[in-house]
Amino acid sequence: MDTVLAIDIGGTFTKIGIVDTQGKILASKVFGTKSKEPFETYLKELIPNLHQLLATLDSPTKPLAVGIGAPNANSITGHIENPPNLNWGKEIPIVKSIATALKLPVYIANDANAAALGELRFGMAKGMRNFVVLTLGTGLGSGIVVNGNLLLGEHAQAGEIGHVNVDPNGRYCNCGLRGCLETYASVTGIKRTVFELIAEMREDSPLRRISFEDLTGELIANAALDGDPLALRAFSITAEILGSKMADTVAHLDPEAFILSGGLSKAGDVLLLPVIASMEKNLFVSYKGKIKVYLSDAPRNAAILGPAALAWSNIS
Amino acid sequence: MDTVLAIDIGGTFTKIGIVDTQGKILASKVFGTKSKEPFETYLKELIPNLHQLLATLDSPTKPLAVGIGAPNANSITGHIENPPNLNWGKEIPIVKSIATALKLPVYIANDANAAALGELRFGMAKGMRNFVVLTLGTGLGSGIVVNGNLLLGEHAQAGEIGHVNVDPNGRYCNCGLRGCLETYASVTGIKRTVFELIAEMREDSPLRRISFEDLTGELIANAALDGDPLALRAFSITAEILGSKMADTVAHLDPEAFILSGGLSKAGDVLLLPVIASMEKNLFVSYKGKIKVYLSDAPRNAAILGPAALAWSNIS
Repeated sequence: MDTVLAIDIGGTFTKIGIVDTQGKILASKVFGTKSKEPFETYLKELIPNLHQLLATLDSPTKPLAVGIGAPNANSITGHIENPPNLNWGKEIPIVKSIATALKLPVYIANDANAAALGELRFGMAKGMRNFVVLTLGTGLGSGIVVNGNLLLGEHAQAGEIGHVNVDPNGRYCNCGLRGCLETYASVTGIKRTVFELIAEMREDSPLRRISFEDLTGELIANAALDGDPLALRAFSITAEILGSKMADTVAHLDPEAFILSGGLSKAGDVLLLPVIASMEKNLFVSYKGKIKVYLSDAPRNAAILGPAALAWSNIS
Repeated sequence: MDTVLAIDIGGTFTKIGIVDTQGKILASKVFGTKSKEPFETYLKELIPNLHQLLATLDSPTKPLAVGIGAPNANSITGHIENPPNLNWGKEIPIVKSIATALKLPVYIANDANAAALGELRFGMAKGMRNFVVLTLGTGLGSGIVVNGNLLLGEHAQAGEIGHVNVDPNGRYCNCGLRGCLETYASVTGIKRTVFELIAEMREDSPLRRISFEDLTGELIANAALDGDPLALRAFSITAEILGSKMADTVAHLDPEAFILSGGLSKAGDVLLLPVIASMEKNLFVSYKGKIKVYLSDAPRNAAILGPAALAWSNIS
């Protein structure tokens, strides 16, 4: 059976999988990225893990290619550049290293770009030609597809919608700017909003008994679903900001749809409905009523479908 | 000699021309659009004007095609849709009408999209594959080129950067929204800023002796070049806003360059230098120092080069 190897590199976990042409995950494994160790140490753990994973299959397969999704990956150079959460140095030639070790063709993309390819090949965007994936996790990543192809831009850095500006005097962002969209519309962003509201509001809330470090998007979503006014207001503020900036994205790209994925998207309608309302309110007249917004239907552990789609799209 | 007919339809003037494959304008003419008359009346003036223009050439030419640039033009349907400044009805099948009258292939694009094609074929963007043209006139139009092709989007409406949001409680826009970029960064936008500053500032200025209706971008630019503090501050505010929103556009598209054209761009460095400074300040780290900003070098009367490029790009 034809398969590809898929690798999703996060700051905390690395997810690897063997995926067939239909997006079926034949085997998968998660291990700690140990981001403080050098890249060579990581490679010495990754390669044996891939071999072991292949050995677990009942019927042997020789994968046709490898797909990697990683933060700050440059698909043209094949390098990871200045990864903020990995202590691997400024420029890691990861494609070459893995290609040498496995003797297979290796393709890499920014993790959100890979997610867009995953939605295109296996997910909500099947058959679409123009759409935008927003991954609402620790940060806000984006992958843009135009005329059926991933939009790379002149320096292969297109799709950093997490860093459009919401407020020039707004929240401090890890990138050095202020008021970036991801400081509001992401799991970390809604946590910041919750803490602002704890300071501002008088109402009791279960969220008052959780530290910032312990707070998760899931806890806020559950509180909102239980009718907690503070959590509901946090989602309403988050959705208002995200929807208005999605209207700006439409004014650039005129997509068929947005697909929201990542941790915050698991909140469901409590996020989706006010996002759609805010986007519609802010859309330029030519677009009103025309732009769809979906939640990704990928399972929570399906981060490897993006890199798998990247590999498949390069070899078929 | 091979030529095309080019038609630029504005709310006030229609410019027509005969253009060769190098972008040389062999003949051109301007006549009033008479926007309050019905479309049929306009057509009865346009077609004879085109024939007369052809008759002025020393050596006869049979044009190969017709290109049209018009506000609210839909290049897929060939219609002009709900033109805000033309009393022609909701949906004008202009491509079909002109093709029938002239028995030539006819192509139409939104005027700013046509301008982008003009820059690509004949202007500052020759050889570029990823760039954005901003036309700073009465409004702010935009044309986006990605991988060498005009970005149309799912509903052929991509590139309405004039309607991204600067301030949710900002200036009222003709489109019905508030705080749209074009209410700040356009000839009309800088006029509004001048009048805000007249109200706010104490300094004398020649601009205090001009009514809003009489004020032009050129008068503001000339005052700024003369060192008028009010005019200089108007350019500084305009450039700050425009540059910050250009940084948002970069976060979507990662272009090689912006090309600024239209009336306001004639101000030159008094606009360009603070625009670049503001854009750089607001750029996400991956883009800093990489994005060029140029002023269009098209002559002021060259609005027909866009539609001409549209025609040429469809037949060659």
